[in-house]
Amino acid sequence: MRYSSQTVERAIHELSKLPGIGRKSAQRTVFYLLKTEASEVEALAGALSDLKTKVRYCSVCYNITEADPCPICSNEERDRSVICVVEEPNDIIAFERTGEYRGLYHVLGGVLSPLDGISPDDLHIKALLARLDETVEEIIIATNPSTEGEATALYLTKLIKPMQIKLTRIARGIPVGADLEYADEITLTRALEGRINL
Amino acid sequence: MRYSSQTVERAIHELSKLPGIGRKSAQRTVFYLLKTEASEVEALAGALSDLKTKVRYCSVCYNITEADPCPICSNEERDRSVICVVEEPNDIIAFERTGEYRGLYHVLGGVLSPLDGISPDDLHIKALLARLDETVEEIIIATNPSTEGEATALYLTKLIKPMQIKLTRIARGIPVGADLEYADEITLTRALEGRINL
Repeated sequence: MRYSSQTVERAIHELSKLPGIGRKSAQRTVFYLLKTEASEVEALAGALSDLKTKVRYCSVCYNITEADPCPICSNEERDRSVICVVEEPNDIIAFERTGEYRGLYHVLGGVLSPLDGISPDDLHIKALLARLDETVEEIIIATNPSTEGEATALYLTKLIKPMQIKLTRIARGIPVGADLEYADEITLTRALEGRINL
Repeated sequence: MRYSSQTVERAIHELSKLPGIGRKSAQRTVFYLLKTEASEVEALAGALSDLKTKVRYCSVCYNITEADPCPICSNEERDRSVICVVEEPNDIIAFERTGEYRGLYHVLGGVLSPLDGISPDDLHIKALLARLDETVEEIIIATNPSTEGEATALYLTKLIKPMQIKLTRIARGIPVGADLEYADEITLTRALEGRINL
């Protein structure tokens, strides 16, 4: 024990487990909290504790939610003929921010990654297939343009293509505001492949 | 509200208040916690909550502690004739790690900083003066070698010097392992001033 208080050591130990927080940041956080109002610390502890008791995954699309099904799945105004397949709940926020997409989502909960031992059974792929009835007209595959994301897109394509549902993949190309000069070859190749008529 | 769950938003909001944690890190932490075992999250929330209920400041030296007086102040084997004056409880850990110091400590709780509105009354200076009875033979001023730390050391010198107690300041010089070439002028000046006989 390096601190004269076991409670302080325990808080540092628990905080250091969080991603991106080392022992030094954990120490700084603990000393910040020791100087903060008790009500503020209670608010933080309560909010973290509520995460596991109040938040769950939507049984339809696996988005994070407090009500099941989630507000998007239960929103009657959304276009039920399109499902956008994403890796994580975070990706839904990114799409929602655009304000351009009015369809539904499906969260895979990750990507295929044999090296990390993540196989199709570890993702919500069966649940996606179960959603594909006659009301669904298009599936947009919006996994990340990483090696694993592309492999997962390919796997889904092989599964869904035979079902005669329109299947699309979000465009990969030069990001808006970026400089062609600094674009990597693969992105440029994808940008050329995905060129559109003007 | 950007997430479909108010609990998630609240956890992100509370985490973003911590020093060095922005909205993006807070989001990452929340998604990490959502995937973690409930018992782990409870351990974290409980540890943070305990900080304010179990940890207090030692009434003698103002170190953080669970028992009052703190283990250092109540340790009969420590040398009660020397008091090392530091800015924060963290500094005590640094000295204890050396294993070289066997005296007592006194935590000021900061440094004099007129710009931030921190005056002598905001620091535990009166409590330090109250400790200076005939058993105390030496005061080591170990505030940081920053402008505020030096000003605080000067202020303490003016207060304590007339009391006929030996008063010392930790040496400022070239850190072990560093390169003279890259040392700044003030550090080099202090290293020259503090030179010792070989």
